[in-house]
Amino acid sequence: MKRRLLLVSNSTLHGSGYLDHCQTHISDFFGKDVKRVLFVPYALHDRDAYTKTARDKFKTLGFEVDGIHEASDPVDAVRKAEAIFIGGGNTFRLLKSLYENQVVTEIRKRVLEDGVPYMGSSAGTNVATVSINTTNDMPIVYPPSFCAIGLVPFNINPHYLDADPSSRHMGETREQRITQFHEEPDTPSVLGLREGSMLLVEGNKATLLGTTRARLFTRGKHSVEYSPGSDLSFLLTQ
Amino acid sequence: MKRRLLLVSNSTLHGSGYLDHCQTHISDFFGKDVKRVLFVPYALHDRDAYTKTARDKFKTLGFEVDGIHEASDPVDAVRKAEAIFIGGGNTFRLLKSLYENQVVTEIRKRVLEDGVPYMGSSAGTNVATVSINTTNDMPIVYPPSFCAIGLVPFNINPHYLDADPSSRHMGETREQRITQFHEEPDTPSVLGLREGSMLLVEGNKATLLGTTRARLFTRGKHSVEYSPGSDLSFLLTQ
Repeated sequence: MKRRLLLVSNSTLHGSGYLDHCQTHISDFFGKDVKRVLFVPYALHDRDAYTKTARDKFKTLGFEVDGIHEASDPVDAVRKAEAIFIGGGNTFRLLKSLYENQVVTEIRKRVLEDGVPYMGSSAGTNVATVSINTTNDMPIVYPPSFCAIGLVPFNINPHYLDADPSSRHMGETREQRITQFHEEPDTPSVLGLREGSMLLVEGNKATLLGTTRARLFTRGKHSVEYSPGSDLSFLLTQ
Repeated sequence: MKRRLLLVSNSTLHGSGYLDHCQTHISDFFGKDVKRVLFVPYALHDRDAYTKTARDKFKTLGFEVDGIHEASDPVDAVRKAEAIFIGGGNTFRLLKSLYENQVVTEIRKRVLEDGVPYMGSSAGTNVATVSINTTNDMPIVYPPSFCAIGLVPFNINPHYLDADPSSRHMGETREQRITQFHEEPDTPSVLGLREGSMLLVEGNKATLLGTTRARLFTRGKHSVEYSPGSDLSFLLTQ
């Protein structure tokens, strides 16, 4: 299995700039061999502005960026990509566009079979998993399916948020929402990635990186906390 | 137009019991003519327990409750209902079950044509509008459509929450999420109902009730605040 993934909870950490908190990991992940990264800006409305943001940041790290929407044939752009980065925004809009542009299968193939490195942040991390069933986003558009690219056999909840005991708000907590997901049959585990954390997958090895812990929710079991540096490879064989 | 609706933001307000904050409005809304209310518990996993909760509360207000899942034919139960109450929980699970039980059209017909009073809270308020595109819930199941019962020509965001300026969390604010919805073409207005507020619709008259203000988001316009008691009838003719 050639799979190489960097799945980031959030693109911007409070008090720092776009992708600052994970830039060392990005440089290490793409490494010396990658010169150009194919950026997928489908999760935000203004694709040009979003691509400029990514391009400017990646330039400081020594990588060129091509926007997939700038290509005349997006499937061909995926076929030729050295590396792929799907940015955050609205997960429903992102997945709908991935299906409309018929790149879901091609991205899966390139990453799992050809070993093309895949980075996602937030919504881009959601779509790398089994399904978008555990996104936090508002369902502003209707995608043809909630099934996602499926680069790992579990789900992620990015921007995972602990309940605030002082809150007077009565909407469900994040934990309650994930528990409701697990009331449904045959639902996969959900890794709650707090802001500041990310998952590095290399082949069949998965490692938690970043500065915050992650919380793993498994159907019918108590949730478990993992610290940065933890080996989470067992998630890949469930 | 015989339509009569009571659309509540939330079933439980911090520090009080189930439906306590709106019980006077519930009594006034159903009135002396209604003896039995058909309760739709589809939004929660345990339908029996949920129906007991609703039944116990409504008994104190002088109404009997029938759970729609207790009927052998849910469509027939809707046809015979004197009044309908759809409770909160997960909006995706609720809408999927409404479609599976083929009651979406029948509820619309009974409410709009026969004048059967409809009460919703939280998810039950979402499904009364144009679509569930502005729910806060996690998409734990995939409904056949996001189109909802359509008892009013706009959308509602229940549990509307103002941004917390002291928060270090970088997930989108509620306002940002609704703005993303309005980046999509032909999207209806969204009434953000804060916890403690509700909308009473009688024919072509809509009035904001409760103890908190509501915020109206309209595509391409600045959002506007409305105080309890405001006449929002203009929303019904958009």
